[in-house]
Order: sequence, then C-alpha cells, then structure tokens
Amino acid sequence: MLSKSKIKLINQLKQKKYRKLHNMFIVEGSKITLDFLCSDIDAVELLATPEWLNKNQPKLTGIQTHIINKKDLKKVSSLSTPPDVLSVFRIPEWYYNDPQLKTDSFCIALDDISDPGNLGTIIRTADWFGISEVFCSDTTVDAFNPKVVQATMGSLARVKVYSTNLKALLQSCPDNLPIYGALLDGQPVNELENPKSGIIMIGNESHGISKDLIPFINNKITIPMLNENQVSQPESLNASIATAIICYALKIRLQ
Amino acid sequence: MLSKSKIKLINQLKQKKYRKLHNMFIVEGSKITLDFLCSDIDAVELLATPEWLNKNQPKLTGIQTHIINKKDLKKVSSLSTPPDVLSVFRIPEWYYNDPQLKTDSFCIALDDISDPGNLGTIIRTADWFGISEVFCSDTTVDAFNPKVVQATMGSLARVKVYSTNLKALLQSCPDNLPIYGALLDGQPVNELENPKSGIIMIGNESHGISKDLIPFINNKITIPMLNENQVSQPESLNASIATAIICYALKIRLQ
Repeated sequence: MLSKSKIKLINQLKQKKYRKLHNMFIVEGSKITLDFLCSDIDAVELLATPEWLNKNQPKLTGIQTHIINKKDLKKVSSLSTPPDVLSVFRIPEWYYNDPQLKTDSFCIALDDISDPGNLGTIIRTADWFGISEVFCSDTTVDAFNPKVVQATMGSLARVKVYSTNLKALLQSCPDNLPIYGALLDGQPVNELENPKSGIIMIGNESHGISKDLIPFINNKITIPMLNENQVSQPESLNASIATAIICYALKIRLQ
Repeated sequence: MLSKSKIKLINQLKQKKYRKLHNMFIVEGSKITLDFLCSDIDAVELLATPEWLNKNQPKLTGIQTHIINKKDLKKVSSLSTPPDVLSVFRIPEWYYNDPQLKTDSFCIALDDISDPGNLGTIIRTADWFGISEVFCSDTTVDAFNPKVVQATMGSLARVKVYSTNLKALLQSCPDNLPIYGALLDGQPVNELENPKSGIIMIGNESHGISKDLIPFINNKITIPMLNENQVSQPESLNASIATAIICYALKIRLQ
C-alpha cells in the first residue's frame, strides 16, 4: 500500500523546483532502473512489483525497496502503461557543479534546448558515440525531467550531464580547443580535416545558437542539404538529428 | 465566429478514422501552411487571423478562407500557443495507393514506427537529404496525424509518403535492388562500398524490423557503437536518429 506522503513526493518530483528541493529524480521501468543501479548515482528507494523484486534481488543489496502492486504504480507513473518498477535516485552532485572540461575528447554543449525528447535523445546518442559529457545551458530543459530521463533510455546513467553557464564555460576554454558550432552557413561537416577533439555546440530548436555565444565558435559547421527541389526546401533539421549526424561525422573519422 | 459544425469537423480530424472518412487533415501554423500551399496537395479551407490573411493574400487565390480570432483558434488548436492560421487540406490520392518504386534513387521504408514525433522527424530528415519517397507499413502511425504533420515542419508537403503493405512492396522489387536493413549485426554503414540507390528499411522503436521482412534484406547495415564503457552500454539508437545517420552516410557518398 502506497502512503499518501509517498504519492505526494513522487508527484512533486515531476516538477523541477521539487527535484531541486529534494535533490531527487524518478526513473521508470526495469531497463533504465538497472542502468542507474550499475552507475555511481545513488538510489534512494525502489517501488516494484513482487515479481520484479524477486527477479532482481541480487542487484538490490543495501537499497530500500517497497513492494507495490500495478494499480498503485499506475497512480504515480507518468507512462501510459505502468512499469514494473519506479525508482527514486539522488541527483548527482556534478549536475549543478562547475564542469571540468576535458580537452582531449569530444563533448557536447547545448544552448537552450527546450524539448525534453530532444535532450533525452541527444544524451542517448552521445552515449552511443562514446561522448561522456554534455554541457547544458541553464536555460536548457532540466535533464532530470521525467520525459528526458525516459528518452535517454538509461544513457543518463552513463553520460555526465551538467547544467551550467555556457558563456562562462566557453570563456574558460583553452584558445586552441576547437569549438564546432552547428550553423546554416558553416563548412560541410563531411569536409572537416582531422577532427580530434572539441566542443560540439547545438542551439535552440527555433532560434539556433545565441548571439552572445557565436563569437566563441572557431569552427562553423553545417550538414549539407541535398534537396534540389526548386520550389520550396526544408529550412533546418531537428536539433537532436543535427547533433547525431555531427557526432557520427566527427567520431567515425577517429576510427 | 466559428460555427459549431466547423469546430466539430476540426476536432474530428485529430482522429484517424475521421481523417480517412473525410479525406482531410489539418495543418497549423504559417510556415507549414505556406509549404503546403506551394505543393500539389489541395487546400480545402483556411481559418486565419485578419493580419495573417492580409499579409498572405496573394498566395490565397481560389482558396476558401475564414477570418477567425485568436480566441476561437485556441478552441480548435492542438498547440500550446495557438497559431495565426489553421488550415484543412485534402489527403493526397497517392497516400493509400500502391506506390511506384523508383530504382535509381534512395527511398525509406518504415516498418511499424509508432511514435508520431519519430515519423515526422524522419520525413523532415528525408526532405533534407533529397529522399522524396517514404513507404510506411500500414501499422505505422498515420502520417496525417497532427503531431506527425507538425514534426515534419512542412516537409510532408514535399516528400511523398505512402501507407502500404511493405511485404507486398518488397516482393515486387527487382532482385538486384539493394535493400538496406538497419540491424544491430550488419556491416558498418561507413564501410559500404558505392551505395547508389535502394531502400533504407527501419524497424519499430522497440522490436526492430519484423521477422517476416528480414528475408528481403540483402544489405544488413549497422551504425557502429563507439562506446567503450565496460560496465554497461546503450542498446540502440532512437529510430529517427538511426534513419538520419544512415541517410547521411549513404547520400554524402554520392556527392
């Protein structure tokens, strides 16, 4: 039986202000929960069906668990089909801390990404391509928003995501660090010579990269548009699609 | 003043069965409406603010228009911020017809894509890369679903999308036509030699390509996973991301 205070807490964690207040976030579903349990992010508690708990008992040492039935899970779940497990994790310390920039690998900087699905998908893609750090402007949607967490499909357990002041981060970069900005008038990403490391910067879904960040870009890049339609043409790609193609184009060259 | 019957019709068109019954779909927003007006898809009527109608009058010859205020637009809009224009278009004839497969260019075949955002984003990406035909299995979400239409950002006005029986389509293909299937155990897409044309096939978000379609694939391809994490790794990429990277990887080679 789920207590009223527990229902209240879980519902509160769907809102950013309460996530920040309690320093916790929620994760739904077996695969994503297990990914987080494999990470160094602390579990607070798990609410799961008896079947799920039985099956996964060996992985749950030292973690507070509650048995809950599907009906109660439905009360707190954000998913259309309630999962077998809903878990509460501690937001990792690094999220709000000043990020440490590595200069020998690629990372991603997101300026004001507003769609949770886009942010989650970008984190999932970064994970696929072995990019372990994503720097989000403080205007970007919160990475611990339940919709973002679900869209990462567990990758948020592996990729370090920071919420930070991007301008300050860029100001602190060494002069010779490549800063690749996705713009419509850049060099075709397939023509870049020997990309080895640097920041891949992606802007807001409607407005692109902010004016005050543009001066930091020392490598303007673009994804060639290959549509020869004379009457009308697409204006842009979706932000998560653009990020993925750039990550692929840069990282595949390192193989 | 918006009549009750008009409100009813527009709300009905949010559901697939009524779109099929009336053979119409809705489009919201200025940019997307103008993209459709440039296409050979027939406009039924436009509901717009006086300002929008004034500004776009020259493009509206022969089209039935209604003046409507923002308050009334809000009543029928699916968007959080109601647009300046909501328009009704005729579903093009080809959508339910047997598709004509071109064998000298790339096309996309989607097996059971269920997320409207994914389908819309795939159509938008196809448009960017000059891929003018997308074949959707009849189990794929309806391309004229308002969420799909919005996610295409107008590209549905340029890309021909067919709802069809994919198995029958694949059976009708010439033997020598490359059928590229996105699978986890294929050849790395960056290592393909001289891709020139063919079908790029993408499967369902959870289950991949259906078992009964696998035998038609004569080129299994995969996007290399570049994550060296030893403890846990991502299982897959989002379906629209995978499609985009494959389209980029194949089409950029033709430049």
